[in-house]
Amino acid sequence: MRELALLEAVEAALGRRSERVVRWIGDDAAVVRARPYAVVSVDTMAEDVHVDLALASYDDAGHRALAGALSDLAAMGADPGEAYLALTLPGGSDPDRVLALFAGAEALAARTGTTIAGGDVTRGPGLVLSVTVVGWADRADDLVGRDGARPGDRVAVTGALGASGAGLAILRGDATGPAELGRRHLRPEPRLAAGRGLAAAGASAMIDLSDGLATDAAHLARRSAVRLGLDLDRLPLAAGVSEVATALGIDPSAFAATAGEDYELLACVPRDRAAAAEAAVGEIGLTWIGEVADGEPGLHFAGGPTEGLAGFEHEL
Amino acid sequence: MRELALLEAVEAALGRRSERVVRWIGDDAAVVRARPYAVVSVDTMAEDVHVDLALASYDDAGHRALAGALSDLAAMGADPGEAYLALTLPGGSDPDRVLALFAGAEALAARTGTTIAGGDVTRGPGLVLSVTVVGWADRADDLVGRDGARPGDRVAVTGALGASGAGLAILRGDATGPAELGRRHLRPEPRLAAGRGLAAAGASAMIDLSDGLATDAAHLARRSAVRLGLDLDRLPLAAGVSEVATALGIDPSAFAATAGEDYELLACVPRDRAAAAEAAVGEIGLTWIGEVADGEPGLHFAGGPTEGLAGFEHEL
Repeated sequence: MRELALLEAVEAALGRRSERVVRWIGDDAAVVRARPYAVVSVDTMAEDVHVDLALASYDDAGHRALAGALSDLAAMGADPGEAYLALTLPGGSDPDRVLALFAGAEALAARTGTTIAGGDVTRGPGLVLSVTVVGWADRADDLVGRDGARPGDRVAVTGALGASGAGLAILRGDATGPAELGRRHLRPEPRLAAGRGLAAAGASAMIDLSDGLATDAAHLARRSAVRLGLDLDRLPLAAGVSEVATALGIDPSAFAATAGEDYELLACVPRDRAAAAEAAVGEIGLTWIGEVADGEPGLHFAGGPTEGLAGFEHEL
Repeated sequence: MRELALLEAVEAALGRRSERVVRWIGDDAAVVRARPYAVVSVDTMAEDVHVDLALASYDDAGHRALAGALSDLAAMGADPGEAYLALTLPGGSDPDRVLALFAGAEALAARTGTTIAGGDVTRGPGLVLSVTVVGWADRADDLVGRDGARPGDRVAVTGALGASGAGLAILRGDATGPAELGRRHLRPEPRLAAGRGLAAAGASAMIDLSDGLATDAAHLARRSAVRLGLDLDRLPLAAGVSEVATALGIDPSAFAATAGEDYELLACVPRDRAAAAEAAVGEIGLTWIGEVADGEPGLHFAGGPTEGLAGFEHEL
């Protein structure tokens, strides 16, 4: 398929969801009427590293890449605005797969009020999809960074952990368990409403759990220059995770803390805002798993087999 | 090198050039105080497709990727703001190469007033660098799209054409010629000041020449729904291009129209704004190469061997 025909087919499949988008696909650049603060993040999904196309459809891949980027906006408490997809794939790739990938992203975009306002389809060494998302806020104070945690804050996570990692094990045939876990791996849900709710409720710091709690909480502790104490025994595990982890020979809590890609939010909340934070998250649920303290900055785990968890970090 | 250490080294090498950048690298997302209109484009450079690392240094590669993205902002007449670099590279890549790549982009960012405000470094199937740039404008009317060309407009290009393609041939050893052409291939210059000047002078439509005049002018003709008549004999060739093209057995004008990656601007200008457009571009120079006419929309070449040029399009 020639590039032009493919881009026109992609364009035809996308919807413009805001009158703020003045120009979009088909020009040198998109033009968007701004709100006072732009919130921008980029997230990359590479074949065989972040997505296994033997397990995930191209539709799933498009969803996951956009979900990962929108999750960063959720962690800031920003309103999603536009997404820009830079897709690299090997020469001779089936155009239907490209369209399926955009369709997967577009379905999530539609559901979250995001406009896919631009992109790029390029020949390259393999499938790589970088998604840039632009969110918006009316005031800087409406946004929450990683650096605002203060001693005395309570620490919570939204939803439940370990679902994505357990789902991947199930999809790979390494364990058996609920099909729902596989779906959670393939179709993670960015916690946009929860993120905005937590920000409005007064959360002092947030981060989304993409690499896993053990890695991401350490980032937050470092940026906030605080000691973050988390209790492994209090981690909320998604239904079926415990059985999968046990089948894999891994302690369930340690599994939930390191498997990654759950895209839940970790939030630090001043004590007097705890009830407001719980209410803001609604049925997704908020579980208190630790506290922020004075002391040497860093992440500290209590409960469970904590060996190797603090300071856990992915190799590039 | 561990991911965290690498990201910290990258961060240390970057400069924040605007007080508008409220949050940047190290948080879930950058936060930027907006101007009224955001102008956003993404451009991808893949190893062996857009850059040959046997010929280009990693420093060059960083420059070229950012230059290609900024060139889109130039074609809109936008002020450059922030850039976000999504870098994918094979596992075990030398961290010094990553830092060189960011350094090459950062030098161009510094010179153009751009802040590299975020990014992502990921393991993947090969070197792929997607750059998202965000530019800004105070009024929608300050920006120029591809769709505004009107019958009677004159058509011009900035600078000179063919330098990048000839430079690549020289670097590959396929021809001999001035070293300056090789530099023009490795270090293209986004025409940001010329783009803003042409927009302010009243240009009706613009596009940057990334794929080559024959491809890009056809995009503009289609988006504006006009007949674009260009005269191959009037194309401004960079010094030495004619000799390189002849050595390669290609007509010099056809070479200049198709070799691509010059990142000059093609502008359509109402007749009464022609003098203002020339003045706006300054010493880079503006050459009038054709006219916009009524008739069947599309690109038409006169002069030179036009066979195969109209409708020339890259395969994906």
